[in-house]
Amino acid sequence: MKKYRVAILGATGMVGKEMLKILAERNFPLELLKLTASERTSGTKINFLGKEIEVETATPEVFNDIDIVLSSAGGDVSKKLAPEIVKRGAIVIDNTSAFRMEKNVPLVVPEINAHALKNHQGIIANPNCSTIQLVMALKPMHDYVPLKRVLVSTYQSVSGAGKEAVDEMYEQLKAMLAGNYQKPERTILPQPIGLNVIPHGGTFYDNGYTDEEIKVTNETRKIMEIETLPISATSVRVPVVTGHSETVNVEFSAPVEIQKLKEVLSAFPGVIVLDQPEEKIYPMPIDIAGRDEVFVGRIREDISCENAINMWVVADNIRKGAALNAIQIAEKMIEMELI
Amino acid sequence: MKKYRVAILGATGMVGKEMLKILAERNFPLELLKLTASERTSGTKINFLGKEIEVETATPEVFNDIDIVLSSAGGDVSKKLAPEIVKRGAIVIDNTSAFRMEKNVPLVVPEINAHALKNHQGIIANPNCSTIQLVMALKPMHDYVPLKRVLVSTYQSVSGAGKEAVDEMYEQLKAMLAGNYQKPERTILPQPIGLNVIPHGGTFYDNGYTDEEIKVTNETRKIMEIETLPISATSVRVPVVTGHSETVNVEFSAPVEIQKLKEVLSAFPGVIVLDQPEEKIYPMPIDIAGRDEVFVGRIREDISCENAINMWVVADNIRKGAALNAIQIAEKMIEMELI
Repeated sequence: MKKYRVAILGATGMVGKEMLKILAERNFPLELLKLTASERTSGTKINFLGKEIEVETATPEVFNDIDIVLSSAGGDVSKKLAPEIVKRGAIVIDNTSAFRMEKNVPLVVPEINAHALKNHQGIIANPNCSTIQLVMALKPMHDYVPLKRVLVSTYQSVSGAGKEAVDEMYEQLKAMLAGNYQKPERTILPQPIGLNVIPHGGTFYDNGYTDEEIKVTNETRKIMEIETLPISATSVRVPVVTGHSETVNVEFSAPVEIQKLKEVLSAFPGVIVLDQPEEKIYPMPIDIAGRDEVFVGRIREDISCENAINMWVVADNIRKGAALNAIQIAEKMIEMELI
Repeated sequence: MKKYRVAILGATGMVGKEMLKILAERNFPLELLKLTASERTSGTKINFLGKEIEVETATPEVFNDIDIVLSSAGGDVSKKLAPEIVKRGAIVIDNTSAFRMEKNVPLVVPEINAHALKNHQGIIANPNCSTIQLVMALKPMHDYVPLKRVLVSTYQSVSGAGKEAVDEMYEQLKAMLAGNYQKPERTILPQPIGLNVIPHGGTFYDNGYTDEEIKVTNETRKIMEIETLPISATSVRVPVVTGHSETVNVEFSAPVEIQKLKEVLSAFPGVIVLDQPEEKIYPMPIDIAGRDEVFVGRIREDISCENAINMWVVADNIRKGAALNAIQIAEKMIEMELI
């Protein structure tokens, strides 16, 4: 079996670390693994399958001899480095929003639109975490009966904003439990998240939506190849470490049967239906953190609209929402002999 | 000014205690205040405006000489006691779901349907917390352009489930922060809530909805007097102490202007619009706990549907969602000379 020279860009971040875990778990065919990050954390030593690997500063030259770069540094870093890396002959699977909406960049969830990989020009974009779990639930439904309109409210965990945001939440909670909490002057998230919910992810557009919300609209349309799908989202951060949840209202273009929806969801690779609510069986972040699948529950007819349903979708935002999906893209490209 | 003989039923609970605070704050015209609760907590002494009041066991006879009973014990207690109290000549403002959907029981948010009080037969029902804040935001909108359909996802705080549920959350969080958390075998809430979200409030009906969700549908229709309003809710508990939040999608029967919506909301008594998101101004539970008003923000056109908007509604579930609304009902009945 062919083996690959892989580099992780952003190896010391939460997603980078999860990528390392997943490469090991899945026995990814590695000839070499290079870890890179910003100057700030370069020099760090990270254990991978019993071997210490020293993190190198991410310069273009570091990627000279690499086949696949799994990139999860910031968007600015990707914008600068990714074209340089591609020039050197590697493909870049990029976890930032830098290239997602560019025409010549495939935006891929392998279970859904792997065929888009064929047209890649070196950079492949990994979608936003909230979008990945959403389209995993929407795609099998759409193949059963075409979608007419989608409404999403998210309950996004703090790890989506990085390790510092998680540390910040723990600090706030500690102070709250000790009874000496004071509203902090500066925060990583836009607001304090301890025992709070924040209806604000990213930056605001003139239309009143955040970029986090518009990503869900645009990326869902691109991945599902339904250019004009009516879809609107409200993104809310909740005090959960890992695991994004979403309430999703789906209107279909024709009648659907709830039982059949459960069947098509269960049959879809990477989706698990947990839906026996009267026995307290439904997905929750605390149960599914660390899991690879997207979990769907609370599937029921929308009593306010014909041909519509409500459901509840939960997934590990660091795994399927980021690191795992990126590695699945690499695996799929190998399978399709694109690398 | 006439003064009234008032009793609180369930005086040692979270809502009961908040009622005491609000009666004092608002200088309610009291001739006498009686505190009652179950046998378990009777005998407790509670300070009210510098005077110790001993909590009495809630027997029918205790209410013999009372004008107004503010009731916030469980639904079973209300079902048994409320008719007995009414027989003795008092009116009962009941915070449980026991009587809300009964034809001859007004279900009232004073800013919206005070006129329904005129037909009372002794019992007046205080609506569900999630419903109260929702209708406070919907009513001025509906008076501007009639509603066509409403979709709600809640982010409900733990205090809505009582003090024991809040204590339970703190215990879980303490263990989580100390690194010695183990999933508890039994919980007050259906699931552990520390660093989790739970898509399950109340009990499940055959149609897959919880009673908490169906309350939002039925009570909104009754209060707004739109018998067939299409409305569907998903209720989710989040790790917040006080303050329910809701994402609300509203479809109107004709075009609306966002600016005009903000104006009619701001002009409505008891509603405050906090909506300058680019300056990080939007309502959050951590900021509005302890406030009387219902706060609305993130008001924007729904990009997935004509004549529809998304918004974010937050209120203190113990105050406007329970204790305050009950006392406002009493005040309104006095003003209308119904007591």
